[in-house]
Amino acid sequence: MSESPIRVLVWNENLHETSGDAEVLEHYPAGIHTVIADSLRAQLGDAVAVRTATLQEPEHGLTDEVLAETDVLLWWGHMGHEQVADEIVERVHRRVLAGMGILVLHSGHYSKIFKRLMGTTCSLKWRNDGERELVWTIAPEHEIAEGVPSPIVIPEHEMYGEYFDIPTPDETIFLSTFAGGEVFRSGVTYRRGLGRVFYFSPGDQAFPIYHHPDVQRVLANGVRWARPRHEPRELTADYHATGWFAG
Amino acid sequence: MSESPIRVLVWNENLHETSGDAEVLEHYPAGIHTVIADSLRAQLGDAVAVRTATLQEPEHGLTDEVLAETDVLLWWGHMGHEQVADEIVERVHRRVLAGMGILVLHSGHYSKIFKRLMGTTCSLKWRNDGERELVWTIAPEHEIAEGVPSPIVIPEHEMYGEYFDIPTPDETIFLSTFAGGEVFRSGVTYRRGLGRVFYFSPGDQAFPIYHHPDVQRVLANGVRWARPRHEPRELTADYHATGWFAG
Amino acid sequence: MSESPIRVLVWNENLHETSGDAEVLEHYPAGIHTVIADSLRAQLGDAVAVRTATLQEPEHGLTDEVLAETDVLLWWGHMGHEQVADEIVERVHRRVLAGMGILVLHSGHYSKIFKRLMGTTCSLKWRNDGERELVWTIAPEHEIAEGVPSPIVIPEHEMYGEYFDIPTPDETIFLSTFAGGEVFRSGVTYRRGLGRVFYFSPGDQAFPIYHHPDVQRVLANGVRWARPRHEPRELTADYHATGWFAG
Amino acid sequence: MSESPIRVLVWNENLHETSGDAEVLEHYPAGIHTVIADSLRAQLGDAVAVRTATLQEPEHGLTDEVLAETDVLLWWGHMGHEQVADEIVERVHRRVLAGMGILVLHSGHYSKIFKRLMGTTCSLKWRNDGERELVWTIAPEHEIAEGVPSPIVIPEHEMYGEYFDIPTPDETIFLSTFAGGEVFRSGVTYRRGLGRVFYFSPGDQAFPIYHHPDVQRVLANGVRWARPRHEPRELTADYHATGWFAG
Repeated sequence: MSESPIRVLVWNENLHETSGDAEVLEHYPAGIHTVIADSLRAQLGDAVAVRTATLQEPEHGLTDEVLAETDVLLWWGHMGHEQVADEIVERVHRRVLAGMGILVLHSGHYSKIFKRLMGTTCSLKWRNDGERELVWTIAPEHEIAEGVPSPIVIPEHEMYGEYFDIPTPDETIFLSTFAGGEVFRSGVTYRRGLGRVFYFSPGDQAFPIYHHPDVQRVLANGVRWARPRHEPRELTADYHATGWFAG
Repeated sequence: MSESPIRVLVWNENLHETSGDAEVLEHYPAGIHTVIADSLRAQLGDAVAVRTATLQEPEHGLTDEVLAETDVLLWWGHMGHEQVADEIVERVHRRVLAGMGILVLHSGHYSKIFKRLMGTTCSLKWRNDGERELVWTIAPEHEIAEGVPSPIVIPEHEMYGEYFDIPTPDETIFLSTFAGGEVFRSGVTYRRGLGRVFYFSPGDQAFPIYHHPDVQRVLANGVRWARPRHEPRELTADYHATGWFAG
Repeated sequence: MSESPIRVLVWNENLHETSGDAEVLEHYPAGIHTVIADSLRAQLGDAVAVRTATLQEPEHGLTDEVLAETDVLLWWGHMGHEQVADEIVERVHRRVLAGMGILVLHSGHYSKIFKRLMGTTCSLKWRNDGERELVWTIAPEHEIAEGVPSPIVIPEHEMYGEYFDIPTPDETIFLSTFAGGEVFRSGVTYRRGLGRVFYFSPGDQAFPIYHHPDVQRVLANGVRWARPRHEPRELTADYHATGWFAG
Repeated sequence: MSESPIRVLVWNENLHETSGDAEVLEHYPAGIHTVIADSLRAQLGDAVAVRTATLQEPEHGLTDEVLAETDVLLWWGHMGHEQVADEIVERVHRRVLAGMGILVLHSGHYSKIFKRLMGTTCSLKWRNDGERELVWTIAPEHEIAEGVPSPIVIPEHEMYGEYFDIPTPDETIFLSTFAGGEVFRSGVTYRRGLGRVFYFSPGDQAFPIYHHPDVQRVLANGVRWARPRHEPRELTADYHATGWFAG
């Protein structure tokens, strides 16, 4: 268990913000990524070294060099999924399989990288009426639930509902209900290669979800959980296994 | 895949009924078990041979002979869990491990047999305000969800809520939400030895749940799913494995 | 549960055979697909309607029309994975997510369709010394293990060994050991959308594995298990969920 | 995440040792528990506070007070399972459900506490010919596999083979093969209530397994993984849920 800081990269498409969406800028004047990064620093202190990157940067801020120095990536995207270059997606995918953790947030369920990791449509039902969401813990012993009340009460949020077309999760930690009666698997984990994946749905741009202390706690827990336990493995061009875990 | 009928036994503690509970007798004048048995016969026809048994019978109607001729057992109990003799519980447990399927219904979550199979407290939260329950399918390809709408709408029911203290299910098929905002894993499966276990929560005695056609469909699907695929194995007195699956 | 025959399509890249590989032609003079198709017919009779298709046919024999009439697809590929057109892979992928079952065989672990469904490298260790493989059942109550001895003894086969870079399976049914001491998860299942996926590793072209009665039984069981339980769902161009399972 | 030491209790039935079994005393002159406790101290240092207890002590050394001060319990038993008092088993069971981690070792698969937690027979096949065991990692990203080579090579050991009659594990981390060709799920995890359970099979008394550095590493990793993430919950006499995780 390494004592060096977990190297975290918070990625945001940053399109609502750069397009001047007043509703979003009210809550996130410097971008969603900034609020998330600050909250991780505030909670985890020296245990993390947090950077940010956005779609607008060269290579979306996801160069080989940056990824090589990232232990856990957080991904927030919504309207710009198609603007993410396929080769960057491939690069992130390979890095996850090699060992990098990834937290996919809210509308990131439809990102190229999440669909690539899942192999399914990742579709869901949704309705944006700003209704109450309750986030219930069903795996109370899990690290990601540590110190998180059940339920988290989110006064107003977009509804995401089942059927959520994802593979059966390795672990289902949170289930959300909405005022309209729907249910959603809102916190789920997967292993993909040597990388750990945590999807967490609360986080719509129109609401100040990432200022919610319980949501912040979930993300901080998620970062600690998703950190690699191995040195990243080498992947050949065609992903062949030569030299991995050889007996 | 045997073409002979699935031998089903519907067990009911039958205490609400025999104690003259008017609310229950209104919906189940001949007992909950009778309604369930009739609905299985109506749906599955020649594919099943359905019998019933109750707590009041000698050995609770669960003699070695009866169990030896049972492929799938349905269990409804509530106020009489402690009246079920330990040796009968042990007998049913052994029979499940040997290959018999079991459907545990509603308040059966606190039955001796379910706790014995699960190894946990099986506790949950509850509130009986007769509120709306929606039963959502999250495993649409599962046999037990075949032909079942999502959600099943149950106009009035007792609330069962998380945290439900069960082992991580092998499969989670249904999630329920309640008007009060709670969520519950209302349809879950497990394998225990050669036996299949399906827990399904809708079914409080005070409401006509087992007359609901969608609920009836779930139970019929559950019976087909839980039927043994093997001849029952022999278990020695101490459950030793001698002779099982030897190479 | 439909009583109409399960419509099965056995797909083979058919390259070893068409290139005149004598070792392969000795066991499979009319192609691997023919032997598999014949064994399914022999075992399942009227319960199936079996066709075959190969890489060499227009659109690899996997037209929209053919797929629309397929309930379960079996996939055997090895040296020609890259010759399978991406648009055909996409088509098969969508059809699986819409509800078609798929059995991926042996070296198909590296096929485009399997990697697409899994989201991982699907790499493994291998060694071809024609050594003894034992296929042990660890889920004896599973339909796919019905009537299958444990272990299946395969006198000579290629070794496939862990680490097998796949997502955690929904169900692990078979584990293989090899004379060299390796282990392999040789029979695993997944759900992807409404489709069921079964990967089964025994089946190298250089050995008469598909003539082995126990292997034939596994494939027949797999076909029955993988058949759809729903009408196939419609998928929009971007896989959006509109209209699926709406409450 | 508490920074205080993990309070570990290594429990051993200590019957082979106290009965003067020369083969066992050669490797474990002060008892198996002593070797395990020393190795945990050597590896984990200030991160743990390790004590031991044995069957021969009053209440088997498992008083309410001792258990209340235990975060992770290790359990080694073999010939004395029936000598463990039922009320002590019940006490340990309640403590696990309330949050204590437990590592069950080798022949502990047949202990009362493990069978109580699993709900199955926990039977397996075995043969004691002192043959080579290879312990392969199939979950390389798991904490318990951190720093563990794949395979661990154990030159001589008792064979434990499938079918191992346990519930489907939450996580399967290690698979063992034996010179005779058998396979065994040798490292598996479960959640039961708030407690974490890790079963690890290498560790027969007749071989110096607990002196093996890789085995020691697995146990140290297991202790860290199994430590509670919550304050222990209160359980009422009948395990009812009042007050847990209330919304």
